[in-house]
Amino acid sequence: MKVLVTGGAGFVGSRLVSRLLDLSHEVCVVDDLSLGRAENLAADGSLGRVELVTLDVRAPEFVAVVDRFHPDRIFHLAANSDISRGTSEPRTDLERSFLTTYHVLDAMRRTGARELVFASTSAIYGEEPGDLGEAHGPLQPISLYGAAKLSSEAYVHAYAHLYGVRGWIFRFPNVVGPNLTHGAVFDFVRRLARDKTRLVVLGDGTQTKPYLHVDDLLDAIFLAIARTPSPVETYNVAGEGTTSVREIAEMVRAALELPHARLEYGEGSRGWPGDVPRFSYDTAKIRSLGWQPRRSSNEAVHASVVAEVERCKRSS
Amino acid sequence: MKVLVTGGAGFVGSRLVSRLLDLSHEVCVVDDLSLGRAENLAADGSLGRVELVTLDVRAPEFVAVVDRFHPDRIFHLAANSDISRGTSEPRTDLERSFLTTYHVLDAMRRTGARELVFASTSAIYGEEPGDLGEAHGPLQPISLYGAAKLSSEAYVHAYAHLYGVRGWIFRFPNVVGPNLTHGAVFDFVRRLARDKTRLVVLGDGTQTKPYLHVDDLLDAIFLAIARTPSPVETYNVAGEGTTSVREIAEMVRAALELPHARLEYGEGSRGWPGDVPRFSYDTAKIRSLGWQPRRSSNEAVHASVVAEVERCKRSS
Repeated sequence: MKVLVTGGAGFVGSRLVSRLLDLSHEVCVVDDLSLGRAENLAADGSLGRVELVTLDVRAPEFVAVVDRFHPDRIFHLAANSDISRGTSEPRTDLERSFLTTYHVLDAMRRTGARELVFASTSAIYGEEPGDLGEAHGPLQPISLYGAAKLSSEAYVHAYAHLYGVRGWIFRFPNVVGPNLTHGAVFDFVRRLARDKTRLVVLGDGTQTKPYLHVDDLLDAIFLAIARTPSPVETYNVAGEGTTSVREIAEMVRAALELPHARLEYGEGSRGWPGDVPRFSYDTAKIRSLGWQPRRSSNEAVHASVVAEVERCKRSS
Repeated sequence: MKVLVTGGAGFVGSRLVSRLLDLSHEVCVVDDLSLGRAENLAADGSLGRVELVTLDVRAPEFVAVVDRFHPDRIFHLAANSDISRGTSEPRTDLERSFLTTYHVLDAMRRTGARELVFASTSAIYGEEPGDLGEAHGPLQPISLYGAAKLSSEAYVHAYAHLYGVRGWIFRFPNVVGPNLTHGAVFDFVRRLARDKTRLVVLGDGTQTKPYLHVDDLLDAIFLAIARTPSPVETYNVAGEGTTSVREIAEMVRAALELPHARLEYGEGSRGWPGDVPRFSYDTAKIRSLGWQPRRSSNEAVHASVVAEVERCKRSS
C-alpha cells in the first residue's frame, strides 16, 4: 500500500513511518521541517527508506505531490503542536492546525485520494466535566488549537459526505515516547538538566491528564483502521489513569538524580491560557475493538522521562 | 449604543439594521455587496441613516474600520448564503463563511471590541435524527457551509475564553421574509414567473424543514441578548412546525395564480449534495426566555411567498 504521511518527521509521525515501513508499505513523508526533523526519521532507520518531500502542505505544489505519489491512504499529522504558542499568535493554529487539514482534504478531492487518517485532540471538548465519549456535546474548545482541530473534524465530515473521502478521526490525549519535540516531559528534562538547582513549573502542578505512549496510540490506530466499516469514524484514545504535572516534575527530578532540586510551582490550575487542567475520556469505543494499552498513563510518562533523560545525556 | 453589522446589506442584515435604527443605535454596515445590496437598506429607509462601508471583512482595512468606529457590539452576518454553490467550489465557504468569522474575531481581539452576535446554522448538526438541542453531539456537518459555521462556532468559544469576547451564537433555521436574496421561495417565484408553464424542483420535494420569519428571528435575538448572562450562549431558533419543498412550490403556484403550471420534481430527497432533507430542532432554550414566534413555519413561508410575488410583479 502507498501511504503518505504529513508531519511524518515529527514525534508521532516518525514513529508511525517506522511502523508503516515494518509493514512493507511504500511511504512518502511531506513535512516542512518547521517542527519535525530528518533526525527523527534517521533515529528509527527510516530516513533512506522513504521519500521525504520538504514542503508545507498548504503550498500549491502539494496537490501535485499527492497526484504523483497517488497514495492509497493519507495520515495527516502536520499541525502546530505547541498549544500555548497558538495563543500569542492566533494565525499559527489557523494556518498550521486547520488550513493544513483543509488543503489535505482538498488535495484528496482534486486527485481522487480516498482514505484519510486524521490526528485530532481531546482539546476539541473544551472544559467539560465527566468522562467524555465521542458523541459528546456541546463542543466548546477553549484553545485555538482545539478550535482548529474541531474545525478540521467538521471539514472531514463534509468532505466525506460530499466527495467520498473515507476518514478515521483519532482524538489524541497527551502522547509521550521517544523523540519528543514538545510538551511537559520534553521541557522539564531540558530545563532541569540546564539549571540543576530548580525547575519552574507553569501553573500549580495540579493539571491532570491522560498520557499515552506513542506505541500504544499506534496500536489503537492500526486496529481501528482495520476494523471500522463506516465512512467516518471517530475514536477517543487514552490509556489507564491520568498523570499530574507534579508527578511528571517529580519523575524528571528522580530520573536526573537531582533529589535536592527545588520544584517551584506557579499559581492557578492552568499551565497557560487555553489549557484544560483536568480531563478524562470515555474510551469504551476503541476498547470494544479489543485494544488494550500496554502502559498506564504513569508508566508511559515514566518510560518517556527515562528515554528523554538518556537522549539529553547523549547530546550533551 | 454603537453597533457594527457585517453583511448588513443582506436579507437578514438589512432587516436587522432597520430594527437597530428604530432602537436609536448608531449603526455601521460593513458589506462587500457581493450578495447584499444597498437597495435592501434603501427599501427599509435605512440607507442614509447608517455608515455603509463597502468592504470584505477579510481585507486588512477591516481592523481599522472596527478600531475607528469602536462598536459596543458586532453582529456578524457576512457569509456565503448559498449552500449548494459551496459544494462546487469548496473555497467559497472556507473564505466567506469561516474566514470572515476568524477575521471579525481577530479584529475584536486587536481593537478590544467585546460583544459578538454570530449567525450560525442548523447545518452544523449534519444528518442527525430527533429534536436536536444546543448541547447535542456528535456534530458532523455534511455541507461545507455547515462545516464552515461549526468552525466559526469553535473559534467564537476559543476567543471568548482567551480574549474575553462575549458571544451569542444563534443557529438559524431557514429564514424567510421580505427582500430575500436566495433560497427556495426566492428561486421558485422567479422561475415560475419566467416560465409560467412549469416549475422544476431539485429533489423529490419531500425535503421538510422549519422556516422562520425574519422578524420572529430578530425578536428571538434581541430577547436572548438582553437576558443572557454567560460569556457564550448558543440558541437554536425555529418556529412551530416545518414546511416541505412541495408545500412551498404549491404556495408559489397559487400566489402567482397559475393553477395549471406543472410542478416537476426530481429524484432523491436532497435538493443538492450536502442538503439535509429533514430537520427538527429542540427550541426549548429560547422559548424558556419567553420568546414566542408570531408565525408558524407555513405562515412564515406563505407571507414570504406573497411578498416575493409582489416584489417580482413590481420589478417586471
